[in-house]
Amino acid sequence: MDTDNITEKGMQKEVASAFQAQCPTRLVLNRIADKWTVLVVILLESDVKRFSQLRREIEGISQKMLTQTLRGLERDGLATRKVYATVPPHVEYALTPLGHTLKDMLYAIKTWSEANIEAVLHAQNTYDTLNEK
Amino acid sequence: MDTDNITEKGMQKEVASAFQAQCPTRLVLNRIADKWTVLVVILLESDVKRFSQLRREIEGISQKMLTQTLRGLERDGLATRKVYATVPPHVEYALTPLGHTLKDMLYAIKTWSEANIEAVLHAQNTYDTLNEK
Repeated sequence: MDTDNITEKGMQKEVASAFQAQCPTRLVLNRIADKWTVLVVILLESDVKRFSQLRREIEGISQKMLTQTLRGLERDGLATRKVYATVPPHVEYALTPLGHTLKDMLYAIKTWSEANIEAVLHAQNTYDTLNEK
Repeated sequence: MDTDNITEKGMQKEVASAFQAQCPTRLVLNRIADKWTVLVVILLESDVKRFSQLRREIEGISQKMLTQTLRGLERDGLATRKVYATVPPHVEYALTPLGHTLKDMLYAIKTWSEANIEAVLHAQNTYDTLNEK
């Protein structure tokens, strides 16, 4: 992003480019092009969830990584965190309207992954055989 | 992925789920839901490119990260690497037909990032103000 193009109201959309290291769109791309974000957003898309539910449904995610992912989504305005004053506190996460706009894109990623796994595994086997020393 | 469902021909598509830690679709998701992959695939989608061209067009990517990204794409059957026996060697990268199927999905990610940057920056400012100590 060329600083000359930054106006008082923020950057002009037409000059935003994720190919530029300093452009904030690169940071957004970093958030949404992330495997944990994809999985969390898909789960929240269907319903509000508690932290423990998300952790259980996304096998292998650590507590720290789930916390980081949710905090990032909250900071970017994509999810909300609501705390109920119970003992122990009950914390619920939900997508914002902006977060819901991610849906089609993220489903496309997940669907592509699941549909093309056999072709990818075949390619990996071939590559590994050719590159064996 | 439940091992009972793995057949001799590989896994059955209907039981592949990226929510399962051991399912290879998780690995594919990790590859394609990655900011560098998104940027490299978008560039290769329009034309064959040399390593140095890719490095120049993706501001801020390190040589090591670009090498890793390209090797991953090659291993997954998404890109090819062609070496010409010149001095110095001329190396060209191109998408495979499978790699080209990523196009719509990856453009969707990039377009979303660029279109929603203002909303995200606004949310970040609000979050940071509320969370200041």
